[in-house]
Amino acid sequence: MHVSEVEWSTTEQEIAKAAFEKAYEREIEAVIQQVRQRASVMTQPNEIWQLHDFLSARRHEIDGKYDYRYSVLIFVFASLIKDGWLHLDELQGLEKDKLTKVVALTRM
Amino acid sequence: MHVSEVEWSTTEQEIAKAAFEKAYEREIEAVIQQVRQRASVMTQPNEIWQLHDFLSARRHEIDGKYDYRYSVLIFVFASLIKDGWLHLDELQGLEKDKLTKVVALTRM
Repeated sequence: MHVSEVEWSTTEQEIAKAAFEKAYEREIEAVIQQVRQRASVMTQPNEIWQLHDFLSARRHEIDGKYDYRYSVLIFVFASLIKDGWLHLDELQGLEKDKLTKVVALTRM
Repeated sequence: MHVSEVEWSTTEQEIAKAAFEKAYEREIEAVIQQVRQRASVMTQPNEIWQLHDFLSARRHEIDGKYDYRYSVLIFVFASLIKDGWLHLDELQGLEKDKLTKVVALTRM
């Protein structure tokens, strides 16, 4: 069975949605902290546009990464775990086959 | 004589350059203060992208406004004075004809 054809039960959907949102909140919070930190030490005019460039890049990356389609969610979760935005135990309750695939992908 | 054909003496160029840079620094400092203020009170993830939108708009506007061509400088100075980023007395030393034009434009 291909990952994209896996079905997600209602309970799994709730777990997945909560984990997805938690990771998103963490990553955004990190961006906010970086903006606060950078804004607090700015001394040169050009630094404000460097901050703008930074936000443009982060927005593009984050918009692309947080893709809540069930067909790609296993890959999204693996990526989020690798990058430290999600913990594997926050996916507990998903069926074993899905968890196994997530773990395998985090090792690639 | 058309404004764009006015000549600027070396002294006038120095005065103009200093005034232009001072106004730019003030406006950028205001943007930095707004970014600090907004970043300090953020509670919702979407607010970071609203801040990005804000910076995109300000950058576009500021890039367009700070046009240091002598052919348009009278208009630029008038606009900066109207918006409060420059004081007329910071242009003292420019020839009277230029100052008169700046003042007239600020009243339009």
